[in-house]
Amino acid sequence: MSEQVKVGVLGARGKVGSEICRAVEAADDLDLVAQVDAGDDVQQLVDAGAEAVVDFTHPDVVMDNLAFCIAHGIHAVVGTTGFDDERLDTLRGLLDDSPGTGVLVAPNFSIGAILMMRFAAQAAPFFESVEVVELHHPDKADAPSGTARRTAEMIAQARRDAGSAPMPDATSTGLEGARGADVDGVRVHGLRVRGLVAHQEVILGGVGETLTIRHDSLDRASFAPGVLTGLREIAGHPGLTVGLEHFLPLD
Amino acid sequence: MSEQVKVGVLGARGKVGSEICRAVEAADDLDLVAQVDAGDDVQQLVDAGAEAVVDFTHPDVVMDNLAFCIAHGIHAVVGTTGFDDERLDTLRGLLDDSPGTGVLVAPNFSIGAILMMRFAAQAAPFFESVEVVELHHPDKADAPSGTARRTAEMIAQARRDAGSAPMPDATSTGLEGARGADVDGVRVHGLRVRGLVAHQEVILGGVGETLTIRHDSLDRASFAPGVLTGLREIAGHPGLTVGLEHFLPLD
Amino acid sequence: MSEQVKVGVLGARGKVGSEICRAVEAADDLDLVAQVDAGDDVQQLVDAGAEAVVDFTHPDVVMDNLAFCIAHGIHAVVGTTGFDDERLDTLRGLLDDSPGTGVLVAPNFSIGAILMMRFAAQAAPFFESVEVVELHHPDKADAPSGTARRTAEMIAQARRDAGSAPMPDATSTGLEGARGADVDGVRVHGLRVRGLVAHQEVILGGVGETLTIRHDSLDRASFAPGVLTGLREIAGHPGLTVGLEHFLPLD
Amino acid sequence: MSEQVKVGVLGARGKVGSEICRAVEAADDLDLVAQVDAGDDVQQLVDAGAEAVVDFTHPDVVMDNLAFCIAHGIHAVVGTTGFDDERLDTLRGLLDDSPGTGVLVAPNFSIGAILMMRFAAQAAPFFESVEVVELHHPDKADAPSGTARRTAEMIAQARRDAGSAPMPDATSTGLEGARGADVDGVRVHGLRVRGLVAHQEVILGGVGETLTIRHDSLDRASFAPGVLTGLREIAGHPGLTVGLEHFLPLD
Repeated sequence: MSEQVKVGVLGARGKVGSEICRAVEAADDLDLVAQVDAGDDVQQLVDAGAEAVVDFTHPDVVMDNLAFCIAHGIHAVVGTTGFDDERLDTLRGLLDDSPGTGVLVAPNFSIGAILMMRFAAQAAPFFESVEVVELHHPDKADAPSGTARRTAEMIAQARRDAGSAPMPDATSTGLEGARGADVDGVRVHGLRVRGLVAHQEVILGGVGETLTIRHDSLDRASFAPGVLTGLREIAGHPGLTVGLEHFLPLD
Repeated sequence: MSEQVKVGVLGARGKVGSEICRAVEAADDLDLVAQVDAGDDVQQLVDAGAEAVVDFTHPDVVMDNLAFCIAHGIHAVVGTTGFDDERLDTLRGLLDDSPGTGVLVAPNFSIGAILMMRFAAQAAPFFESVEVVELHHPDKADAPSGTARRTAEMIAQARRDAGSAPMPDATSTGLEGARGADVDGVRVHGLRVRGLVAHQEVILGGVGETLTIRHDSLDRASFAPGVLTGLREIAGHPGLTVGLEHFLPLD
Repeated sequence: MSEQVKVGVLGARGKVGSEICRAVEAADDLDLVAQVDAGDDVQQLVDAGAEAVVDFTHPDVVMDNLAFCIAHGIHAVVGTTGFDDERLDTLRGLLDDSPGTGVLVAPNFSIGAILMMRFAAQAAPFFESVEVVELHHPDKADAPSGTARRTAEMIAQARRDAGSAPMPDATSTGLEGARGADVDGVRVHGLRVRGLVAHQEVILGGVGETLTIRHDSLDRASFAPGVLTGLREIAGHPGLTVGLEHFLPLD
Repeated sequence: MSEQVKVGVLGARGKVGSEICRAVEAADDLDLVAQVDAGDDVQQLVDAGAEAVVDFTHPDVVMDNLAFCIAHGIHAVVGTTGFDDERLDTLRGLLDDSPGTGVLVAPNFSIGAILMMRFAAQAAPFFESVEVVELHHPDKADAPSGTARRTAEMIAQARRDAGSAPMPDATSTGLEGARGADVDGVRVHGLRVRGLVAHQEVILGGVGETLTIRHDSLDRASFAPGVLTGLREIAGHPGLTVGLEHFLPLD
């Protein structure tokens, strides 16, 4: 790669895509060379010499976009949703034929959310109790949030791996729902309050002490630093990577 | 009353009573003149000239204690539990015959808890959403806590009085219990985590802002300042008072 | 007043003014009859039959706007800055000649911020210690924030009025600045962290317990409910009122 | 080692030592075989067949205790303070002559505090801003706390290693101390509030999001789980180890 990574953005006129264009333009080590959206010819990525693309488009078109990029040896950082095992296998097959090319598919580019989940899972076996509280605006349709469920599953897995005992809970009387939802043995509580955006707190406790890990997401722009990290690291990670955490130098 | 209030403590050798003896002794404006416990003769309160007593004893003996005190014109600050309407009526009858004497019966002497409940109820009509989270050690038998229920009821009452609209909540899918217990239309969430003592948070939210009122009780000694306030104010409040909040100069 | 209050907005095309136009239009009991901005003739307020106006304009024009409104018996809710004692006296003089008309001048329309300050001051005399922490984005020029200073002053005043003892603090060694700024005897700490908007926490503590009152302002839209409250109440408060708190039914 | 580790406690009648005796007795996989305090003969450790000891004694006696244990091949978990480089070198020399023996010297056995510091340092390079707030009871003599200083130094080191840019801070006017103490470029704020015990919060922020890691220590008993971890792991770590974090399976 050149000193400045030449970047193309697919979905460049979308809400997320336009934010990413701005962030790429503001970064000294990245060069925005192509902005592609519905109706545009993806060939312009090749013409502009794009080395890596960001794809925040739509499940209907993302596989075609990625097939094109991989065929032309262009790395891809993908935030588009809808990736199941079949799609990931298809990507692996395409990448086998283009061994130097890297594709990162990530459900979440917020570094804060990724670290919250990771730290919660790492810490969970060291404490007797762990519970998750997620707090969102009241227009949200699902409770608990997908991130809270995923966090609880990671905590439960970490505790199983470590052979942790079940959590103590002497509750014998009370009101239905008071102790939250049970996700794989971990209690998860969902608040819906006007004025909130997206927040999550993991509370871990042992004798005489508690450790609390909280993530507050106040603005959608919070995904931008994670996408830029993806763009900077993708050339060093050929093949398929699922999850931004694999690009973060955490150990 | 004299400059220093002469105080007797009933239940003086109990866990709470002994803490109160210490607190009374440490206060310049109070004079500990009698410490009475099971087996002791209450007559010593009169002999010692006690002007006010504190009673943290037992539901089985508290009514006899209070009958004695009222008959001798000794004010009483009572933290013993078990007062129902019948008992309160009995006290009112006794006090009718001793018009200068005051009795304060309070379920909670923690000034922080009292203020949390009061502020939450006052603020509730000004916000679209209000939820309650209570956090306790995992040996607690009931969920939600009595304080959380009472707080939710006070919030619900304040919103009814103000004609507040129902709270917004678009939840349509999810796991059972994720949205907590419903107490009079107010969502209440109970966490049970080792290391915690007794904590409660009320989160109120409107467009673009939230107000959070949190009470942390870390030590049983937190009731002492409330008891001392009771002792200082009781002479000025003849008759029966239920709830320490009536002695706090809040308006 | 009619059932629906007829509302005019001065500064209607500004950032704040346009938000207020939207909020007034969305409210069933308010009717947006005039939108006036720089270059428009204020006479249209009268022609449209406006009963009350909102003014979020500029210190240079607000006095002329208000003189016009008062002369025509139109109530005013004012968020424009720059009101000193001289300007307030001028308003009082104008209002003397129009006795049924009300003007509300308020430095802060966020109900959450107003309640946080009020509750903090009310609670302060009941606790040994009170400190203030304000947290803002790092582009803010002043530290501590104006709201934090004002909160500390209100706390200090409430404690003086109650004869509270000085707060305990055994700090004898350490680093400069570690204990924050001293505002009238109250410690105030200012954090500047990217990702934050405007937040403040007041922590009050006594033996064994703490009470925390926190306000999070995540969006400028948080002033709208306060402005609507002003519009609904102003007809019932002829003369000059300074501060929205006087319109909130808090006692 | 046998299935149950045979444990001796030095300083067994002290405040901390007696808590540890209780915790060892309550653990199924540990067997309390000797309780030694000032005036007792340490030979009883050998006679009782102790495989590992805990030492919470005094700087004046700890080196003699450890020399004895190492000479007899007894592992040691040490919470006594006062270890400088010279003492650590002495221990290394003694351990060279007893190659299978392990000694753990740890300034902090609270797993929550250790994880807070570690996570804060790991996360620090991923965010633009990091600040530390520590909150303690008002009888504490130093501000900021030793843990807060150490946390700030670890954060600063992690950011230097990662080549992080200086943190943004546009503060240009204000009151002295408002922005806290500067520890190696990291702002640290110390609150002193009655009712608090020992608490610390690290707030990290990037565009649109914040990550908060908080440790609350409510009871001295919080060191016990860390000491037990030390006892369980020490046989597998011959030689000198400084810091409990090396025994925690974190990566």
